[in-house]
Amino acid sequence: MSRDDPKKNPSARRRFLAQGAAAAAGILAGGSAPGRGQADEAAPPGIPDWTKTPGADVGSQTYGQPSRFESGLIRNVPKGLKQYISASSRTPLQDLDGILTPNGLFYERHHGGIPDIDPARHRLLVHGLVEMPLVLTLDDIRRFPSESRIHFLECSGNPSYDVIKKGRTASDLVGLVSCAEWTGVRLATVLREAGLKPDARWVVAEGADAAAMTRSIPIEKCLDDALLVYSQNGERLRPQQGYPLRVLLPGFEGNMSVKWLRRLNVTTEPAFSREETAKYTDLMPDGTARQFTFVMEAKSIITRPSGTQRIVPGFHEITGLAWTGRGKIRGVQVSVDSGKTWQDASLQEPVLTRALTRFRLPWKWDGQPTTIASRAIDETGYVQPSFEDLTAVRGLNSFYHNNAVVPWHIAESGEVANGYA
Amino acid sequence: MSRDDPKKNPSARRRFLAQGAAAAAGILAGGSAPGRGQADEAAPPGIPDWTKTPGADVGSQTYGQPSRFESGLIRNVPKGLKQYISASSRTPLQDLDGILTPNGLFYERHHGGIPDIDPARHRLLVHGLVEMPLVLTLDDIRRFPSESRIHFLECSGNPSYDVIKKGRTASDLVGLVSCAEWTGVRLATVLREAGLKPDARWVVAEGADAAAMTRSIPIEKCLDDALLVYSQNGERLRPQQGYPLRVLLPGFEGNMSVKWLRRLNVTTEPAFSREETAKYTDLMPDGTARQFTFVMEAKSIITRPSGTQRIVPGFHEITGLAWTGRGKIRGVQVSVDSGKTWQDASLQEPVLTRALTRFRLPWKWDGQPTTIASRAIDETGYVQPSFEDLTAVRGLNSFYHNNAVVPWHIAESGEVANGYA
Repeated sequence: MSRDDPKKNPSARRRFLAQGAAAAAGILAGGSAPGRGQADEAAPPGIPDWTKTPGADVGSQTYGQPSRFESGLIRNVPKGLKQYISASSRTPLQDLDGILTPNGLFYERHHGGIPDIDPARHRLLVHGLVEMPLVLTLDDIRRFPSESRIHFLECSGNPSYDVIKKGRTASDLVGLVSCAEWTGVRLATVLREAGLKPDARWVVAEGADAAAMTRSIPIEKCLDDALLVYSQNGERLRPQQGYPLRVLLPGFEGNMSVKWLRRLNVTTEPAFSREETAKYTDLMPDGTARQFTFVMEAKSIITRPSGTQRIVPGFHEITGLAWTGRGKIRGVQVSVDSGKTWQDASLQEPVLTRALTRFRLPWKWDGQPTTIASRAIDETGYVQPSFEDLTAVRGLNSFYHNNAVVPWHIAESGEVANGYA
Repeated sequence: MSRDDPKKNPSARRRFLAQGAAAAAGILAGGSAPGRGQADEAAPPGIPDWTKTPGADVGSQTYGQPSRFESGLIRNVPKGLKQYISASSRTPLQDLDGILTPNGLFYERHHGGIPDIDPARHRLLVHGLVEMPLVLTLDDIRRFPSESRIHFLECSGNPSYDVIKKGRTASDLVGLVSCAEWTGVRLATVLREAGLKPDARWVVAEGADAAAMTRSIPIEKCLDDALLVYSQNGERLRPQQGYPLRVLLPGFEGNMSVKWLRRLNVTTEPAFSREETAKYTDLMPDGTARQFTFVMEAKSIITRPSGTQRIVPGFHEITGLAWTGRGKIRGVQVSVDSGKTWQDASLQEPVLTRALTRFRLPWKWDGQPTTIASRAIDETGYVQPSFEDLTAVRGLNSFYHNNAVVPWHIAESGEVANGYA
């Protein structure tokens, strides 16, 4: 409180926007707007056009949309791919605030396109090593006790080892992560309804998409915090996120949270499906493949200032996101001097387990070229590694599970660019 | 954990869906689907149509939309009004889960329609009893230190004293409340930038809409948790919620959180504007008007089962929402026997201050007619009153600030209806 109480510190009024405040006086005298931004379009203190005529009706959008002035704030879709049935689009992290991702901008990764599923005809089959196989309708599933939790979801190739050197924006680099409030029934509750047999060790989840996406989930996770989700950020799941039903495995690689869920087969062994053998395994320096890297390790990214943005000398709030599949983020350290020193950023409360965490650090840029970066520390004490430290162990054959620090270089012009490029 | 661990209680498997489980066995034998729902459309365990052909491309919606099968999940717009420039639309609470409201379904209340504001031309004027008047661009405002918080916003006429007897759904009754993650700068920080003069007691906020919506805010709230908000649920504010800039006064009646904010005039006295004299005051039994009822008191609503829904005998999870402008919800009590007895519902963690709180209570309906209801208790110990207790004090002249308990009557047919109707 006292920090921002004007009465306690009136002389601090020009602390953040010296230029702005000075120019403001000019405007009131009929002068121009602050130097930054749209000086040529400066509005006089008079009544703006949009106040002079009635606006649009209530209910003119029974399902609301963003302003037409935000039409550029969309998912980041790679250009020139051979096909888009099996591809991904990224969340525009550098243009978002807070920790939640609106459903319209949630990242996508599909392997057989987005199916158009009629929920009235959709069924979930629970079979294999169970006392009583079940075929459940959506109505059945919505009658179970429910839970709501805020968790991030992240693709394990976020970013791949080559993209980290090529990406221009925060979205290019780590836009395959998003965060939402999920509501559904605990997978444990549904398995209990069917009754697990003693030798149940894995649950093989299968999607109703054209790829019949199939992943094997260890029974321990199924009986822990795994959810069968039907709602995201309050409303029903979007088709891109698995409508009408998906698995959600908090902290595990996104590919395992099978979308458009139609089947749970309880087994003693994994299915060794394509997505857990040929794909989503980590090729090590010795040529062997590390299999079953389920947990997404601690990661962070500065979203503002970030690549392709341009800053001016003076005050800036450095802000970004941190997350870990291991639980809660304990801290985030930020360097503004090319890694020489690191300062603790403040974390936005509440810090939630396996959710994006917003960090912030006030900073005054002196106009000299430098590199800024963030590193996350999770509740286990694990520290997000530099790309050098990570690749010293993992080599450069890997594609997935790259959680290296992302540095941003700031030129004398104020332009921000990928520190690896 | 243990509660839902199948290995510890395999025999409980038919606890929730006895019919479903039984019918499921039938399906696997080529029979029909569970009795509830779409038996005639029962899907065999075979491959559904949508798995047999590739789905839609990644990026086919660069800004995603709900499934076409959810086209009915929209804002609740009253029919047959004389005009829709000054009106409201309600959030469909009975169809939502969790605590967050997606931006597309956030409730609306406009007094001069929705202006179409160009953010590059929008300015915020801060003047009156300040050391240095300011005219700020959106770029200026985004350079201040930011905060993100999850808070509810509620219209003070939610519901009016007549609607509570007429409303059919939870949305009809209290759909003028929604909840989101808001990001912006603390109002205190901007006032500090301008520098408050010692006799500053009120801040008069004015909107850029055609109503020039004007409300007076006590300086204590301005220097406490008040925000100037530019983002909602991660993305920029929607036009319906004040794009590009609004006030947010956590826990205060929604009308005071002025949208499309263009002016903050620091004064010694309130403006006594239309919206705080002729409107938004409470007419008491003795004919006097109670002025400045800022805080929204504790309230709750059962959203499932709720009005116009239909239930069958057996297990149901009673769930709903509770909130208070005083801080955190301490507890929610639910009655399933027409108010004879009350049980404590469980609250979804984390319980946040001045945010919607999701409550749940497992219940087995015996098929007999009854009335269910919820009442909220906030951290001050205040208990949500019955309509009788509230009106005994406030009379029936009032229009605003009705936080009475809402009972739902359940008929032998399973149909749920307004317990006051």
